[in-house]
Amino acid sequence: MIFAVFGGDKRQARLAAQLKSDGHTVRAFAMEGAELPAEVIHFSEITRGAVSDADCVILPLPASVKRGYLNAPMAAEDHCIGEVFGAMLPGQIACAGITNDYMRSLAELQCVQLFDYYTREELLAINAVATAEGAIGILLQETDAALWQSRILILGWGRLGHALAPRLQAFGARVSVSARNPGDIAWISAGGFEPLDTRRLESRLGGFDILINTIPSLVLTADRLRELRPSALVIDLASKPGGVDFEAAKELGLKTMHALSLPGIWAPETAAAAIKEAVYNILEEDTGKG
Amino acid sequence: MIFAVFGGDKRQARLAAQLKSDGHTVRAFAMEGAELPAEVIHFSEITRGAVSDADCVILPLPASVKRGYLNAPMAAEDHCIGEVFGAMLPGQIACAGITNDYMRSLAELQCVQLFDYYTREELLAINAVATAEGAIGILLQETDAALWQSRILILGWGRLGHALAPRLQAFGARVSVSARNPGDIAWISAGGFEPLDTRRLESRLGGFDILINTIPSLVLTADRLRELRPSALVIDLASKPGGVDFEAAKELGLKTMHALSLPGIWAPETAAAAIKEAVYNILEEDTGKG
Amino acid sequence: MIFAVFGGDKRQARLAAQLKSDGHTVRAFAMEGAELPAEVIHFSEITRGAVSDADCVILPLPASVKRGYLNAPMAAEDHCIGEVFGAMLPGQIACAGITNDYMRSLAELQCVQLFDYYTREELLAINAVATAEGAIGILLQETDAALWQSRILILGWGRLGHALAPRLQAFGARVSVSARNPGDIAWISAGGFEPLDTRRLESRLGGFDILINTIPSLVLTADRLRELRPSALVIDLASKPGGVDFEAAKELGLKTMHALSLPGIWAPETAAAAIKEAVYNILEEDTGKG
Amino acid sequence: MIFAVFGGDKRQARLAAQLKSDGHTVRAFAMEGAELPAEVIHFSEITRGAVSDADCVILPLPASVKRGYLNAPMAAEDHCIGEVFGAMLPGQIACAGITNDYMRSLAELQCVQLFDYYTREELLAINAVATAEGAIGILLQETDAALWQSRILILGWGRLGHALAPRLQAFGARVSVSARNPGDIAWISAGGFEPLDTRRLESRLGGFDILINTIPSLVLTADRLRELRPSALVIDLASKPGGVDFEAAKELGLKTMHALSLPGIWAPETAAAAIKEAVYNILEEDTGKG
Repeated sequence: MIFAVFGGDKRQARLAAQLKSDGHTVRAFAMEGAELPAEVIHFSEITRGAVSDADCVILPLPASVKRGYLNAPMAAEDHCIGEVFGAMLPGQIACAGITNDYMRSLAELQCVQLFDYYTREELLAINAVATAEGAIGILLQETDAALWQSRILILGWGRLGHALAPRLQAFGARVSVSARNPGDIAWISAGGFEPLDTRRLESRLGGFDILINTIPSLVLTADRLRELRPSALVIDLASKPGGVDFEAAKELGLKTMHALSLPGIWAPETAAAAIKEAVYNILEEDTGKG
Repeated sequence: MIFAVFGGDKRQARLAAQLKSDGHTVRAFAMEGAELPAEVIHFSEITRGAVSDADCVILPLPASVKRGYLNAPMAAEDHCIGEVFGAMLPGQIACAGITNDYMRSLAELQCVQLFDYYTREELLAINAVATAEGAIGILLQETDAALWQSRILILGWGRLGHALAPRLQAFGARVSVSARNPGDIAWISAGGFEPLDTRRLESRLGGFDILINTIPSLVLTADRLRELRPSALVIDLASKPGGVDFEAAKELGLKTMHALSLPGIWAPETAAAAIKEAVYNILEEDTGKG
Repeated sequence: MIFAVFGGDKRQARLAAQLKSDGHTVRAFAMEGAELPAEVIHFSEITRGAVSDADCVILPLPASVKRGYLNAPMAAEDHCIGEVFGAMLPGQIACAGITNDYMRSLAELQCVQLFDYYTREELLAINAVATAEGAIGILLQETDAALWQSRILILGWGRLGHALAPRLQAFGARVSVSARNPGDIAWISAGGFEPLDTRRLESRLGGFDILINTIPSLVLTADRLRELRPSALVIDLASKPGGVDFEAAKELGLKTMHALSLPGIWAPETAAAAIKEAVYNILEEDTGKG
Repeated sequence: MIFAVFGGDKRQARLAAQLKSDGHTVRAFAMEGAELPAEVIHFSEITRGAVSDADCVILPLPASVKRGYLNAPMAAEDHCIGEVFGAMLPGQIACAGITNDYMRSLAELQCVQLFDYYTREELLAINAVATAEGAIGILLQETDAALWQSRILILGWGRLGHALAPRLQAFGARVSVSARNPGDIAWISAGGFEPLDTRRLESRLGGFDILINTIPSLVLTADRLRELRPSALVIDLASKPGGVDFEAAKELGLKTMHALSLPGIWAPETAAAAIKEAVYNILEEDTGKG
């Protein structure tokens, strides 16, 4: 098959290389600054000639950061999403990470079949694993004490909480996890972790050395931050704006980090492989290709 | 509060004792054969006088086995569900494990508020843990080899699979788990287990010493059973009729077991506590009591 | 090679079958009541003709229970160790599990090369694993509550403690381990378990649901047993006389068990394979055979 | 008590602070560049007046790097070990990490009681844990793929192997461990890891993504390194000269690292606490103080 791969970071460059190594023809666009294997040809312009015979066009994760523009930190210049879709023929397939209304409207106008691979559980699972590894890497770097015997609170029992809790426990940390509903509380407990109620954290927060937030809403408010011990480390893994009152944390002199896009930084090879699998599955299940 | 506890097995008797020990008034019905603490009064008849002032009537898990009848293996005689509901006043609350259409119609007719505690995730989680413990107890008893280094296939990545896989792995078993969709496959893999596709088990089954089915549909067909090594042990944990062609297994001389209601047998105390918690949560969330 | 296998329980019978299945000639003695494969010939008498050309004579584990006699619970009649050694030629090799002075003197007199396979770490390790599995099987059977969230104290950080602690923790139990020296205390803690000092258990014992002793000296004295909660379960895995004051426990109404020879009962196949490996290693390392 | 703390890195400075925070009087020497709490007084000269009333003199880990000299990377100038012992009175106690013949002779001449805390198992255990954390931190940084599903070989089943293997397995890595004797092989296997024979690694090494050496002798020879895949990462944790032919590795273009003193870099707080505990135990057990 022919793949046209656009923009993105290190992860997207690895994806191009992996597709090539699977035997496909791969064309790269908008990644002038990337290291690519010789067999992946980089096109300096986005032309219909180079794009329109591709079996699948792959946009990065996230596909867009600035509204209307392709996310392409390694490109020599800016490109609009419209440029990409404009070079495609009606009926062609595009796969993108995190699509939005604008992108979907544009795709519809151009009669492009647009699929969001960031909705595929097989990608989200591996992403959670890679994010957990990155978060642990950060914890190891940022703390002077061992993770062993440290008291850690994970806020939220979603994919990330599931990946983090057993890994931290294997380090000998004392892991608590907070959630809201009784079912999650029961599963946290069933997994061997101490459950806390996210709505009733008051007077419980002073005991932790490390807090890891995974909840995408303001859960570590100024009032709650005031309870933390001064030496506590707070890491927020929830996408912007996150779940920590960073302003208040700064005033309190707390050490905080908003750590995003960890898979692309800590494990780009694995993150790329997960995108590749998701794209293959989309092609097979949803389009009959692949 | 006043609880009226009906029928059931060892688990229901423990539930009565635990409610008592929490400071409630507890009346027991249809469990003549049970061991009960002295403070739990057993009523030999189901009368409106003994039932109608209860804050909550608790039917067992499952509430009914034979259509229309209360599940009450320790009772001196048979009782209809109608007898229980008939002794209640309009608006009274009943909690039951696994309700059906018949039961719900009856409750509606009698204006009884009927809640099914077996839909509560906090109960289902603990039930999965207790079932996993029972299943491991059976495996330890039924095999002459250690679980250590045995090759085990768990069919299905639901609650039970989640509870079984890490426990078996801690024994040093080589754990494979089968599932259908790519998301489950990814999470199985993310958990450190070998994933298999339930639809493509052919020619993969000959390598396992132990197979544990958790899928409630015929997955271990005669054709698949023929692939097993003669010494393999097959345990079916899915509710009746289960997922194993037991007829075919018998002809093939395979050792099989259909193991049901394990929590009530292997951990009645914990199973009762989980029902209690679920009932308390129902009373608090859904009725404002508790 | 030719093996002559004597006495023992189920484990020794499995050992005979496994040696056969490895391609050796196997002769069995003093196990009239055992199930043996057809190719293993059972000799009704211990004669020099049947024994003297064996490359290795294997006595059971333990080799002797009653002083001077072969441990042979499945034999039709009693046999002396002297009978076995007497049928051997000078220089012949015998492997036995747990030898004593008497046995070693006898071997020296008969010029038999006697090796104790129960000193081989590769056997002791697997034995610890199989014992841990048996102990967990007993715990699952004997308790009405789940192991999950139960508070368990393991007395002793030897091979058995090492095998038990992580397995019980995977069940979600809260595992404490007691030891005497600071190094063991540190490793218990490094493994993620709560360490206790065996010499300072006073006023710490009331919190446990289950106590598992692995120390072969009187550690659970009457005074200490008095601290236990009435519902506590005490399992002693240390060889006779064990480490529990059973007399005192009985008076206190505590539930206790002295559980011995668990590998032969719960995992005879694996236990036999471990003996086989140890014997092969002895033959290779110590005698140049194998 | 009065402690006189000499030289060392970040770890030694933390030790001074921790001793202070336990209520002791702490004097620091030869660490001009260290951050110390205000209550710890730093002495610019090593005089008998400042040293001779100390209950315990603590030298760093390692006590000496250049023969005869104190290991004091944060000091303004060089100091001889003789200077330290020379300021002590006969009978005074010194604790040092890794002593050598020279140091012991000197101590004897000065009638100083010298104890080596690096022989204490409680310190070695925590050191292994902290080293494992550091090694995992390095792996997370240095690899573009996730640890999850990576194939890792740990060479050696000593303290470090024991700490590394379960932590890496919790990441979902496929962990093999090599050892020489059958007992270690059995325990590796009992722990759920794949065992390899260190003497027979030939033709087995090509399958690994990561190799971690913990054996202090040349085990990864040029011949063996030639078997590795070009992308393999080799980390040597054994003290100098280590167990890897670094020269040959360089020629082969392999990525290697000799990673030493990880606890002081990755977890100085925990490493200091472990030294403190070891010193307290020496004072209590060996000198009757403490």
